[in-house]
Amino acid sequence: MTLHGLSLIAGATGRHSDNTFRAVDPASNAKLDPEFHEASETEIDQAVNLAASAFPTFRARSGADRAKFLEAIAAEIEGIGDLLIKRAHEETRLSLTRLAGERARTCGQLRLFASVVRDGSWVDARIDPAQPDRQPQPRPDLRRMLLPVGPVVVFGSSNFPLAFSVAGGDTASAFAAGCPVIVKAHRAHPGTAELVGRAVKRAVAACGLPGGVFSLIHGSGATAGIALVKHPETAAVGFTGSLTAGRALCEAAASRPSPIPVFAEMSSLNPLFILPGALKDRAAEIAQGLFASFTLGVGQFCTKPGLVFAVRSAESDAFAQKLSDAVRHAPCATMLTSAIRESFVASRDAITSVDGVTVLAASQPVEDIEDLGQAGRPTVATTSAKNFLEHPELAREAFGPFTLLVLADNANELSACASALEGQLTATIHGNAADLTGARPLLATLERIAGRIVVNGFPTGVEVSPAMNHGGPYPATSDGRFTSVGTAAILRFARPVCYQGLPDDLLPDALKNANPLGLLRLVDGKPTRDAV
Amino acid sequence: MTLHGLSLIAGATGRHSDNTFRAVDPASNAKLDPEFHEASETEIDQAVNLAASAFPTFRARSGADRAKFLEAIAAEIEGIGDLLIKRAHEETRLSLTRLAGERARTCGQLRLFASVVRDGSWVDARIDPAQPDRQPQPRPDLRRMLLPVGPVVVFGSSNFPLAFSVAGGDTASAFAAGCPVIVKAHRAHPGTAELVGRAVKRAVAACGLPGGVFSLIHGSGATAGIALVKHPETAAVGFTGSLTAGRALCEAAASRPSPIPVFAEMSSLNPLFILPGALKDRAAEIAQGLFASFTLGVGQFCTKPGLVFAVRSAESDAFAQKLSDAVRHAPCATMLTSAIRESFVASRDAITSVDGVTVLAASQPVEDIEDLGQAGRPTVATTSAKNFLEHPELAREAFGPFTLLVLADNANELSACASALEGQLTATIHGNAADLTGARPLLATLERIAGRIVVNGFPTGVEVSPAMNHGGPYPATSDGRFTSVGTAAILRFARPVCYQGLPDDLLPDALKNANPLGLLRLVDGKPTRDAV
Repeated sequence: MTLHGLSLIAGATGRHSDNTFRAVDPASNAKLDPEFHEASETEIDQAVNLAASAFPTFRARSGADRAKFLEAIAAEIEGIGDLLIKRAHEETRLSLTRLAGERARTCGQLRLFASVVRDGSWVDARIDPAQPDRQPQPRPDLRRMLLPVGPVVVFGSSNFPLAFSVAGGDTASAFAAGCPVIVKAHRAHPGTAELVGRAVKRAVAACGLPGGVFSLIHGSGATAGIALVKHPETAAVGFTGSLTAGRALCEAAASRPSPIPVFAEMSSLNPLFILPGALKDRAAEIAQGLFASFTLGVGQFCTKPGLVFAVRSAESDAFAQKLSDAVRHAPCATMLTSAIRESFVASRDAITSVDGVTVLAASQPVEDIEDLGQAGRPTVATTSAKNFLEHPELAREAFGPFTLLVLADNANELSACASALEGQLTATIHGNAADLTGARPLLATLERIAGRIVVNGFPTGVEVSPAMNHGGPYPATSDGRFTSVGTAAILRFARPVCYQGLPDDLLPDALKNANPLGLLRLVDGKPTRDAV
Repeated sequence: MTLHGLSLIAGATGRHSDNTFRAVDPASNAKLDPEFHEASETEIDQAVNLAASAFPTFRARSGADRAKFLEAIAAEIEGIGDLLIKRAHEETRLSLTRLAGERARTCGQLRLFASVVRDGSWVDARIDPAQPDRQPQPRPDLRRMLLPVGPVVVFGSSNFPLAFSVAGGDTASAFAAGCPVIVKAHRAHPGTAELVGRAVKRAVAACGLPGGVFSLIHGSGATAGIALVKHPETAAVGFTGSLTAGRALCEAAASRPSPIPVFAEMSSLNPLFILPGALKDRAAEIAQGLFASFTLGVGQFCTKPGLVFAVRSAESDAFAQKLSDAVRHAPCATMLTSAIRESFVASRDAITSVDGVTVLAASQPVEDIEDLGQAGRPTVATTSAKNFLEHPELAREAFGPFTLLVLADNANELSACASALEGQLTATIHGNAADLTGARPLLATLERIAGRIVVNGFPTGVEVSPAMNHGGPYPATSDGRFTSVGTAAILRFARPVCYQGLPDDLLPDALKNANPLGLLRLVDGKPTRDAV
């Protein structure tokens, strides 16, 4: 399969353009073939309009049909074989093992959403049967379910070239809900995007769906991205990336004549609280676990723990020492792009240059990588809780292998730090049994700021399952009421519709008297699979 | 009980102020006693800060406790007796019968939410048990549920002085979720607001809750309202009112350093499609039903049908005649406020002055009301579908007793009109069996634009029940994914939190192994009430 470097507009191959770019191998800074052609304004307009035209057909398909489509995408992606992993590796320098794992996760996600829509109960069907004799007024027959919102624009993310990109979690959940998808490919891995995009296109054709169900757009975030968000037919947006870019998309969406929701996953420090008993019992183990977590994937995870809180003690000194030793001997590795590396260095240096912040350890630069300006050097720094509370800029995300150890004089200071935090994707507590018994107030504080609370574990590694929540109050995401990982992610792309007095044969299957889909439904407020 | 005219700040009575206003009897334009004192900036700040302080205590209360609180509010409101209905009548001139009915609905809503939180399953508990032996990596124990978001600001609405005001649907659902509430009282019925506010305050005290759980603020929307929305501790906003005011609140919320959701119910035309068979069978009955629906409460319902579509025929002429006759002989009645009346007249006149629009009938002005500038004159006008499609300004809400009959030359034009509509709270189809068989494409169009679809009924009269949806795509509401009426309204004020690896005793009761609350939970993706 040769890459053509063109957008995919509703099943057709896009046009060549004067505005081209190439992927870059971040390890060598070498430009990769082929040239990629940015979609024109006309093509972007066509892609969204054709998505809108395809929507009635696509949403009318049964859950079983949508499940087959999702499974066909997974099979097509697997069918690309090693070529996909190889290209993704060249474009990101993520390891082959990681990328193979990410492909498995991507296909697993698609199949999980297939099972969700095949089951069908996600539509939250509710039926209040008519009460014709009720006084003072009869009650009409009311039936409610979730329906898809319409065309969804998905932005590929740099750090998950497969699992949060062209056919990643946002796309899978939008398709599952019944929404056509227009993906804005990330410019750092356009070849990977094309390979996956062509796989989706084949699945669309194989399932007999209209081409408008899927388009892939090459272009910049500031022009193509904003044009997609502003298009009147776009109904919702999924995004994973920086706070600046996410907020720009939110503002573009909010200032439309008809505003639409943006689900942007943006920024998180993922604070880790190590309580005294845990530090006494397991300092070395926690240090090793934290090191592995904050340097995993060169620290390029939205769940990377970037802040660590403990009360100062002999054990915290030992912990800092263990962590520093691990960091000092850590390998440097290539970051995803030079922009990410520059941003990492700038953020890290901004933090470490604040008065009262000391760098405890940094790994040694590897010359051939450092020269290319792409190496992420694992770094750990420390400061006092007092200093942390006085400098809100220390609670700024440095996307990369950096963490800041904040040492409090006592438990009250530790609590004050927790209370001072903004919204987070995750928050973690390490504690032994006695620590945890006293940790209820801390837990209550963390429940208010975080979307996921981890005890005696690490936040990296996000399970894709019904109970997962990957979201959190602003600025972690733009809408902490929804998750972007796990089966509940489908709820982002649906809205309720209530039918009053509809004849049975006009109702969607999910709401028909006989319950032909066998859904668990709320009838008169009580869950049941019985017919009405 | 004498009205004191002061705000209620977290259980305490607010201060007197230099900025005062009085309620106005809309029938006589007479100012009513007492003077009402606007809350100061300091008081507004206190109210929200005390709500934030009360939040940890309030959210920690069990569902059973919150149910008792909601029931106590209902009992306290009923305990006010006729005084409440009398004051609400003086401030709004809504009929005593209507207001008594609205009180019953208000208390019914509070008790319905009590039953929802006593049952508890609304938290959508999900448990994915650990799989320690899973390859390639073990799965941690993951448990997810919905938790309250924090202090909620509720704006009292002018047209529902009880059911969507101080202790109305927004407040009831926010309390049910576990959120403290700060109400911005509507300036058109401050006395009603005070009476209900003091009832809520008594319930707060009787239930041993911190005073900060509830505050009532007198002041203007532009200053007090915006200050409440912009306050850093405010977590969400509920509003029912005009598109202009709603959009201003949305913009204030979106431009905060930390944006928050606004649930604004704003503007809807509630289109009604009368298909040929229905017109043939039931023209007179539909005309009578439509007349009753669009003039109910002087047309001051967000679900008032303001657009009626039919294919031109002998039957449509007869229908227009019947409707006109009813309108011509309709009584004028006092509207809620002079501002609403002025806005109604301006909107109605803007529509009827468009080329190609003809007024079919208007009721005769009643002199003593018309002179006071408060009368809403029921009016029906007509135009062609072609003209409607050429003039988007005809699809503008005139809040009051006005409806526009749009006549199409054929079914295709009728479909084109449906496709041209913006987001709506409701859409209605009248059809006989043959009409409905052919109405699937129309139904599919309406599903995309409306939150509730009514067949052979009228949209006014919104049931408060599990299957109700009172919401719709913009501009009907600011967030069509949520309802403001019915039990699902609670979902607006909650967000998911996932717990990973928490010991059983630290988990909320809803997620404990033994399932002590007896909830229906999703365990490994399967609904069950069994223990884990």
